[in-house]
Amino acid sequence: MSDRGTGRGRRVRLGDIAADLGLSTATVSLALRDSPLVAEDTRVRVKAHAEARGYIYNRYAASLRTARTDMIGVAVHDIQNPYFAEIFRSLEDELGQEKQVVLICNHRDDVARQRQFIDALLQHRVDGIVLCASVGTKADEIVRLTQAGVPVTLICREVEGVPAPVVRGDDYAGGYAATKHLIESGHRRIAMVGGRRQTSVGQDRNRGWREALSDAGIDPDSQIDIPELMTRDEGYEIVPKLLEADSAPSAVVAFNDLIALGLLDGLRRAGRTLAITGYDDINAAAKQAPSLTSVNNSAAQIGRIAADLILKQIAGDTTDDQRILIEPKLMIRESSM
Amino acid sequence: MSDRGTGRGRRVRLGDIAADLGLSTATVSLALRDSPLVAEDTRVRVKAHAEARGYIYNRYAASLRTARTDMIGVAVHDIQNPYFAEIFRSLEDELGQEKQVVLICNHRDDVARQRQFIDALLQHRVDGIVLCASVGTKADEIVRLTQAGVPVTLICREVEGVPAPVVRGDDYAGGYAATKHLIESGHRRIAMVGGRRQTSVGQDRNRGWREALSDAGIDPDSQIDIPELMTRDEGYEIVPKLLEADSAPSAVVAFNDLIALGLLDGLRRAGRTLAITGYDDINAAAKQAPSLTSVNNSAAQIGRIAADLILKQIAGDTTDDQRILIEPKLMIRESSM
Repeated sequence: MSDRGTGRGRRVRLGDIAADLGLSTATVSLALRDSPLVAEDTRVRVKAHAEARGYIYNRYAASLRTARTDMIGVAVHDIQNPYFAEIFRSLEDELGQEKQVVLICNHRDDVARQRQFIDALLQHRVDGIVLCASVGTKADEIVRLTQAGVPVTLICREVEGVPAPVVRGDDYAGGYAATKHLIESGHRRIAMVGGRRQTSVGQDRNRGWREALSDAGIDPDSQIDIPELMTRDEGYEIVPKLLEADSAPSAVVAFNDLIALGLLDGLRRAGRTLAITGYDDINAAAKQAPSLTSVNNSAAQIGRIAADLILKQIAGDTTDDQRILIEPKLMIRESSM
Repeated sequence: MSDRGTGRGRRVRLGDIAADLGLSTATVSLALRDSPLVAEDTRVRVKAHAEARGYIYNRYAASLRTARTDMIGVAVHDIQNPYFAEIFRSLEDELGQEKQVVLICNHRDDVARQRQFIDALLQHRVDGIVLCASVGTKADEIVRLTQAGVPVTLICREVEGVPAPVVRGDDYAGGYAATKHLIESGHRRIAMVGGRRQTSVGQDRNRGWREALSDAGIDPDSQIDIPELMTRDEGYEIVPKLLEADSAPSAVVAFNDLIALGLLDGLRRAGRTLAITGYDDINAAAKQAPSLTSVNNSAAQIGRIAADLILKQIAGDTTDDQRILIEPKLMIRESSM
């Protein structure tokens, strides 16, 4: 589509429209932005001609020429999770080099809180938004950003129908690998603990666990599956329930490292051990006693790629709504032995 | 000073200036803000008269009547510390009720990063800033905010010479109480580990440790004192150094809970125990095995008070640069036994 009507094999530029109509580039730009500084009939004429020539109007790039705020908003559900801290660090490092300030929002999986943040950022025309979308986020919520010309990149969680690139780990593969490792270590009663099942992350890791069990001839529905838990506290507190279950597990696939660490604390308190795997491979995982088997989920890489995608969009490049899946790596340590 | 030149015992108001000069309040307000909408000679006349009558010009209150952004910036050095997560939660809850959006900055004790954040917020005229100031923050850095009429409240760390209210725990009292508890439990070799000594927090907790030792006839300079550590990782990694020291301690006053938890992990790894106290009483402290003795540092209360102080300033009330010191509470648990 980039050369429709030009016959010159390149994208139509603002200057082409201006030359055709004998107007300045500034006038054309203002007309396309519906500026009252340009007479109504000129605006109509410019728009009609731009459409005829197949000019793709990048409203955001236009605003760039007038104003940049050098602010990037980043919203996640739990800033306290060290996994996100690692993502923030790499985002801040990359964006800081471009003199972008990172504004963080802790939406706590509350759509209203997320909306308030997005509204404020829209109003102040931030240069871009990196979003790990709240549970319950509808595509519309994000489409209104992209329609306003604000670059968006999703991280970690996918939201169907959103016209924006996504960078995340392959949660299905990670859930499968952790479960397969426990099966190969001889476990047959393997619980899954945690994960918000309304998110792609919660769904995909759970599906990985289910399919690894099925592939080994174990019925996942005969196993303990406890959804929704997310924090270390919740991991700690669920231990009695696991130990007292009718068919108590000998191993647990924890949704994330926080839950895994809470489980280890709770088991120590109870004087018991189970084989445990975590997910995210936060810094602390390797430094526990026992050290924690975990799925490395490439926080720094996700932060870097997200920064890169946002900067590209700010520069006016298209990112083609890419879906970048990062292959996870299982880090086998003491906790699953 | 509030009634200088009026003889009426009350503060001079904008309306008084307007009445004296036969102008509208709006014109006086614009003139005081140097608006080009008001003729130069009128501006000069208004300002001279306002000065003569001792009118205290609240530029921020003036801007309030024209524009509110409903954004509050909050900057701290480590968003990953659960202590700050608790402060954020209570700030967000309080400010959310007033439809304020909280924008978080992780300055990582980097003055340049903090400055970039403050610049961005100034430019976009946030309604207020809550700041746990970076190491190396000069008073000027914050004075430029207050001079621009942006409400500021400091939390946790004091910065000398800053004309803004401060809310923080009494770190000296907390450091003293933790150390005294270990002395009363029979310890005589008590190390202190961690804390940035360029901050009021690091200095005050260390001073509490020193004075409790001195008061018990123990020379603090004969004890191990390891400054600057702040994280769980750093606590974990320092364990060998503590255990191999010439006069190895039997107890450690950790600067914060993260370091204390890292020490407990490292000791477990080494198969050793020491009596440990933490500081902040984060949620996880009570849920460890062993549970962690800690100094409760009232995160939720500090968040609430800081929100209240900011909202008062936004409303145009003076807060008299209060210094609010919250009394810490020692929570004795298993780790110090």
